[in-house]
Order: sequence, then C-alpha cells, then structure tokens
Amino acid sequence: MFTSRPVGFVKSPYKDAGQVPKGLGAKHEAEGVLVILPEFELGLTDIEGFSHLFVLWEFDRSHEFELLGTPPSDNRAHGVFATRSPRRPNPIGLTVVELLRRDGVELYVRGVDMLDGTPILDIKPLLSGIATERLRRGWLAEAEGRKK
Amino acid sequence: MFTSRPVGFVKSPYKDAGQVPKGLGAKHEAEGVLVILPEFELGLTDIEGFSHLFVLWEFDRSHEFELLGTPPSDNRAHGVFATRSPRRPNPIGLTVVELLRRDGVELYVRGVDMLDGTPILDIKPLLSGIATERLRRGWLAEAEGRKK
Repeated sequence: MFTSRPVGFVKSPYKDAGQVPKGLGAKHEAEGVLVILPEFELGLTDIEGFSHLFVLWEFDRSHEFELLGTPPSDNRAHGVFATRSPRRPNPIGLTVVELLRRDGVELYVRGVDMLDGTPILDIKPLLSGIATERLRRGWLAEAEGRKK
Repeated sequence: MFTSRPVGFVKSPYKDAGQVPKGLGAKHEAEGVLVILPEFELGLTDIEGFSHLFVLWEFDRSHEFELLGTPPSDNRAHGVFATRSPRRPNPIGLTVVELLRRDGVELYVRGVDMLDGTPILDIKPLLSGIATERLRRGWLAEAEGRKK
C-alpha cells in the first residue's frame, strides 16, 4: 500500500457530480483555482512559464470501484481502464488545464472538471500534445535555447 | 491521507535509474509490458481499441522530496511542480505509452521510462494530443459513429 496526501485543493464551480459536463462532446472550459498549501509554495517556482499542466487529484467522493461499467458516452459497458470512470481501483483523476495566471499559492486555470474542494495530489508541466502555437514550455524551452 | 495499491507491475529494460534516458532530447522508445494483476483483468475490457494510454505509477524507489531541484535538462533549479522530478511530495509518475498489443493481462507497450518492477496505480485511455492519423480512440470513436 502507498499513501498520499493533499498538496492543495481545487476551487471549482461544480458542487456535485451532476453539474460536471460528461459524455460525447463535453467541453471543459470552466475556470477554477488550484490552491496549493503554503508549505508546498516553493514547489511552484517557475510554473508560470508553462501554458498547460497535468493535475493529478483524488476522487475523494468516489467509493468502491467497478471493473466494468457503462460510461455516459455510450450505452455499452467497458473496462474501467478503458474509461475515465471515477469508480477506479485507485481513485486518482487526471486533468489537463490551461494555466491563466499565478497569484502566490493560487493557480488560476481553465478546464477544471473536478468538484469543488477536490484534493490535489500532484501537478506536472505538460510538454507536448498541444498545438505548438498555444503551448509554452517555460524554463525547458529557455534551457534548450541556451544550449543551442 | 489516501491509500493506493498496485493494480499491476511494469516489465521494463531499465534496472536502475541511471539507465533511463533523461534530459533534453531524451527519447522514450523502449518497449515494455504492463502486467496487470489477474483480479483486475476484467478492467482491461476494450482497451485494445486505444492506441495510447496514460500510465500512473508509483516512484517506489524514490524517498523524500525536494521542493526545488535541478533537473538533468538544466543547470538551474526549478520548483518540483514545474519538473518531472521523482522527488515529489506524492511520488506518482505519469507516462504516455503506445499500446502495441494485448495478451490477456499483459499490455505490450512502447515508451516506458519506468524501472523494472514499478507498481502501476492506474491506466487511462488517451483521447487527444496525438496526431490524428496515429491516434485510435476505441469504443469512444465507435460510440460517436453510432450516434451520428
């Protein structure tokens, strides 16, 4: 068994799961704030340079799991590892957000699909998979430039 | 505190961290196998239809964390949430792999950067961020087709 703990919490417009857009064509344009605990603030150094972030978080209001389930986007059942279901053996969520700005321990982002109060486990910079003209890679792009 | 447990383990050519390509321009083309525990096999149903997967895994050989660290790709220190450092408050890794084929509980993949024996926490389908001609979206693409 492994243990993890919140490094912060999500401020989101969604108070319950029924409010989160789901299924085919769902757009995740909602803005929210990732509020990092003060003890981890130093870990945010230079994060402003990145346009997109991976957020790992805990489905803290999901209990039990099902290996086979029918997602909102289909009327057929699929394996949990082939879906985004919250009812997972390890209830860890993954969301790509766009970083709009940072204010101290607060990261203002677009693209939240978590419930308000959701515990954040980790944040990582996104380095590819977004159209080049929209992707900023912060210190990494600078380091590459210096080595040329 | 939250707890998680392995749903499987990675078979990888890398036996120690020094062997994993790191830093600028590192390519992750290594092939490996995600071996899922038999009790979770049903959760793999329909996963064959996806070309790319997110793998969440535990940095089980990383201990302690540092909020500010100097990555192999730079000679300057950056915040842990702006890097891929293994020394994270919650040592959870994230890797995108290409699914080559499935054989029962074994997923043969390309792009592993984990050490041999690494515990797998979760697998999720990747639905965007890869060039369209290379991305297959399995049951989701079929469900979309049926609703047109």
